[in-house]
Amino acid sequence: MNELKTYAIGVDLGGTNTVFGIVDAAGNIVAQNSIKTQAYDTAEAFVEAGMTALLPLVDQVGGIGRIQGMGIGAPNANYFTNAIETAPNIAWAHDRIVPLARMFSDRLSPLDVQRSAPFPIHMTNDANAAAMGEMAYGAARGMKDFIVITLGTGVGSGIVVNGQLLYGHDGFAGELGHVIMVRGKEGRLCGCGRTGCLETYCSATGVARTAREVLQNTDRPSLLRQKPLGQIESLDVSIAAGKGDEVANEIFQFTGKMLGEACADFTAFSSPEAFIFFGGLCKAGDLIMRPIEEAYNKAVMPIYRGKARFLISELMNANAAVLGASALGWK
Amino acid sequence: MNELKTYAIGVDLGGTNTVFGIVDAAGNIVAQNSIKTQAYDTAEAFVEAGMTALLPLVDQVGGIGRIQGMGIGAPNANYFTNAIETAPNIAWAHDRIVPLARMFSDRLSPLDVQRSAPFPIHMTNDANAAAMGEMAYGAARGMKDFIVITLGTGVGSGIVVNGQLLYGHDGFAGELGHVIMVRGKEGRLCGCGRTGCLETYCSATGVARTAREVLQNTDRPSLLRQKPLGQIESLDVSIAAGKGDEVANEIFQFTGKMLGEACADFTAFSSPEAFIFFGGLCKAGDLIMRPIEEAYNKAVMPIYRGKARFLISELMNANAAVLGASALGWK
Repeated sequence: MNELKTYAIGVDLGGTNTVFGIVDAAGNIVAQNSIKTQAYDTAEAFVEAGMTALLPLVDQVGGIGRIQGMGIGAPNANYFTNAIETAPNIAWAHDRIVPLARMFSDRLSPLDVQRSAPFPIHMTNDANAAAMGEMAYGAARGMKDFIVITLGTGVGSGIVVNGQLLYGHDGFAGELGHVIMVRGKEGRLCGCGRTGCLETYCSATGVARTAREVLQNTDRPSLLRQKPLGQIESLDVSIAAGKGDEVANEIFQFTGKMLGEACADFTAFSSPEAFIFFGGLCKAGDLIMRPIEEAYNKAVMPIYRGKARFLISELMNANAAVLGASALGWK
Repeated sequence: MNELKTYAIGVDLGGTNTVFGIVDAAGNIVAQNSIKTQAYDTAEAFVEAGMTALLPLVDQVGGIGRIQGMGIGAPNANYFTNAIETAPNIAWAHDRIVPLARMFSDRLSPLDVQRSAPFPIHMTNDANAAAMGEMAYGAARGMKDFIVITLGTGVGSGIVVNGQLLYGHDGFAGELGHVIMVRGKEGRLCGCGRTGCLETYCSATGVARTAREVLQNTDRPSLLRQKPLGQIESLDVSIAAGKGDEVANEIFQFTGKMLGEACADFTAFSSPEAFIFFGGLCKAGDLIMRPIEEAYNKAVMPIYRGKARFLISELMNANAAVLGASALGWK
């Protein structure tokens, strides 16, 4: 151990922005910069721009010699191969495997003449990075068995068992947004090409879809009718539910029931101490969390009842993905 | 390490018989004895009888000094507490917590004067013991991520991730027989008090139930009609399917579809290298395994398709539960 290495780099590579952060051991982001993920034609050009954004931050904390390692959270990133594997939403990676960890390491290693091995960089997907962040700095501190569920454009998950991220034999474990909640033809069509996935009901997109269905199929009054049907977003449902709108609250009841019943099945798998929810939908607080927990305790097998905790991420306002990715940098 | 300790004791505590085996490092059961599990009023009397059965075996291999430790596989056994926790089907344990590991250790420790610590005994449930057995001596040798599914009176499971049994925060992880396959009121009533559990469709009992439903609701000819409806067992379905009986094969198609679709969801959780099936139903071989695998590859998310292997236990004819439990004894 070199005592000088008191920082790690965390990179949150999202569909829109890529954020580089220098993080200390207590989980403070001491320096930060970002670039547009999609402004580049090739992965090489992206890495070039990333280095330009990152190097001033590195200098700011005393140079590369002060940094233990780097972690990158990115869509379709595989922990085992340290590469982005055909990420549909990233133009320079949608049709190829991009060994991003090696590409950055090749650039950073020559800068650190004291280090004998290549500069260490690990990658994982964004939901796994969020789980790492919760374990290192957030709601899961001290826990060894928990599941982070991210409710965003899609539904992602990071599963920790026995203190370790669950990667599976191929690095692709933990796609809980794609367990089937409605079997057969009635299930909603999912982006993965199948029908009935949890994600189609409980992502932000899924909640908006539920809202449009309810408004279209009934003539019940609702604050949600103030907007054109096609423009309703999950945030509108949150706001309306917060104002006591009955239809909006029923949409959250429905969403919570789906999530609670899904979690009941997840418990039969790994019996976690807690489920930690992350993402815009959680800002609705008890309006969404209570329906989830109630549905869970009703649906779960009696031996598990009342045991699991339902928590909201403690990193919602911090840059959780950067923190989570940086946790990989300490390895 | 004491090189003299070349054996482990494996105990398979079942609803009817309890088998004690002395196992060598290669997985050979070199000595074996059994008692009737339910012939005793109290756990103390059971342990007393167990010691009487076990001690001659221990002497046979050169005494307690030759034995590394003991593992016990038992229904409702908790790895964390080393106790049977209210096992509904065992008279002396149905309404209490029985710390069986400590009870046996208290009897065995004084016999080994060379050993400074108490004689080590670990417990786990029967499906987890089966998974340990497959990993140590069976179809999962060399694997780090796999799921054993036991198809017996119920459906049990032992989940291995990253080379470790998945116990969860309370020791009760891996109850995959109780994920919900049919939601709502149409689901079959399960022994756990809920409806629609995988176990109600795919256990031996579930298969017999499917057979009775099909025979009752149609007048299609079938070899299965040679027996009174109430006496049909899953073995009859296997035999009829083997003879080309169309109804019997459709029952296996239905059972395989349920199992395959369930496994597709399990893969979204832990992405195992293989599913290993154990129990009487597997004796039907391809007649049941092919429908499972076909349904799985149709149902699973595209990124996983074609990756997982579907295997039958390699310990079906050996005493898998004794071997599996003994694997705990090496710890």
